[in-house]
Amino acid sequence: MRRANTQLQLDRRAEILAAAQRCFSRSGFHQTSMQAICAEAGMSPGNLYRYFSSKEAIIAGIAERDRAEVVQQLANANFTSDFWGTFAALGRHHVVERTAEEVGLCAEIMAESRRNPEIARIFQAFDEDVKARLIAVLRAAAARGDIAPAIDLESAVTMLMAMVDGIWWRRAVDPNLDAEAVLPVFLSITRQMLGGGARCEGERGENSNEG
Amino acid sequence: MRRANTQLQLDRRAEILAAAQRCFSRSGFHQTSMQAICAEAGMSPGNLYRYFSSKEAIIAGIAERDRAEVVQQLANANFTSDFWGTFAALGRHHVVERTAEEVGLCAEIMAESRRNPEIARIFQAFDEDVKARLIAVLRAAAARGDIAPAIDLESAVTMLMAMVDGIWWRRAVDPNLDAEAVLPVFLSITRQMLGGGARCEGERGENSNEG
Repeated sequence: MRRANTQLQLDRRAEILAAAQRCFSRSGFHQTSMQAICAEAGMSPGNLYRYFSSKEAIIAGIAERDRAEVVQQLANANFTSDFWGTFAALGRHHVVERTAEEVGLCAEIMAESRRNPEIARIFQAFDEDVKARLIAVLRAAAARGDIAPAIDLESAVTMLMAMVDGIWWRRAVDPNLDAEAVLPVFLSITRQMLGGGARCEGERGENSNEG
Repeated sequence: MRRANTQLQLDRRAEILAAAQRCFSRSGFHQTSMQAICAEAGMSPGNLYRYFSSKEAIIAGIAERDRAEVVQQLANANFTSDFWGTFAALGRHHVVERTAEEVGLCAEIMAESRRNPEIARIFQAFDEDVKARLIAVLRAAAARGDIAPAIDLESAVTMLMAMVDGIWWRRAVDPNLDAEAVLPVFLSITRQMLGGGARCEGERGENSNEG
C-alpha cells in the first residue's frame, strides 16, 4: 500500500513535469503561470503545490529528470566495444531525435537563466555535471586509444556542447532546419576534433572502420 | 543645411539603436518598454516615435545595421591573398571579440523570435542573407582551391553558423566561458570541415602553412 502510494506520487510528479515542459516550450518560462501548468496537467492548484512550490522548483525537477536520463544513457552506452558507433548513435539521438518540444524547452530555460539566478544555478549545475561525465567518457576513450591521447578535453567538450546547443537553437528558431543533413557534418567534425582516425583517407562520409 | 540635418537624423537613429541594444541585452526584449528605451537614449517618447514606431521596428533597424556591418566586413576581407588567415581573423572577431552586450542581444532576439512572428521574419531574413554571403565566399574559395571542392556548402555553412550560435549562447549564459580557449578548437575543426589541408601533419594547433 505504501509502495503503491509512492509510485503514484512519482507518476504524478512525472505528469506535472511533462505538462510544464509543454507549457514552457510553447509559451516561455516567463509567460507560463502555475495556473496554466495546473490546467495542462489537469489538476487543482492545491494538489500541484503539494509537489512543487514554484516554477523554479519544477525546472529543478525537469533538470533532475534529464540528468538521470543522461546518466542512464551513458551507463547503457557500449563505448568499449564500438566507440564511434556508440558515439554516432548518441549524436543522432541528441541532434536529430530530440523533439521540437525538448529543443524549445532548452531554448527557453537558457534564455530565462540569463536573468533568473535560481534557474541559472540549476542550469549550470546540470551543465557541469554533463560536461564532467563527457570528459570522463573521453578520458577513458583516450586511454583505450579510441581517440587521440593529447587532446585538451575541457575545450573539446565545451566545443562539443556548444555545437549541440547551436544546432538545438537553430532547430528552436527555424522549424525548416534539416537536422538529418547536419548530422553527418556534426559527426565528421566531432570525430576529427577528437582525432578519431580515418582522417587522411576520404574526407567526407567516412563511416567505415569504426571500432 | 539639409545634409547636416540628414546626418543628425542618422546619428540619432544610431544612438537609439545602441540604447535599445543595451536595454534588450540587459532586460530582454519582452521586458523592455519603449519608455525604458527613451530613458536610456535620453530623449522624449514623442521624439523617439518619430524614428521608430515599435520595438519590432527597432529590432529591424538593428538587423539592418548589423547586416551592413557584415557586408562591409566581407567586402574588406582579403580572402584571395590569405584565405585562412583572413578566416581566422573573422573567426576571432565573432567568437571572442563580440561584446557580452552583443552576444546577449542575439540570445534575446533568438528567444523572442520563437513567439513573435515579426521578429522571426526579421531574424530569418538576416540569417538567410548572411548564410548566402558565406556560401558565396566559400564557393569562391573552392574555385581557387583554398578549400575542398566537393563540400556540401549548405550543410557546412549551417554547421558553421550553429557553432558560432552555440558559442554565443554559452557566452550569454556563462560569463566564465573562456572563448579564447575555445577559439583554436573552433578554427581547427572549421578548417578540417572545409577540407583546408594540413590535416595529416600534426593534429592540433596547426596554424602554419596558411595562404
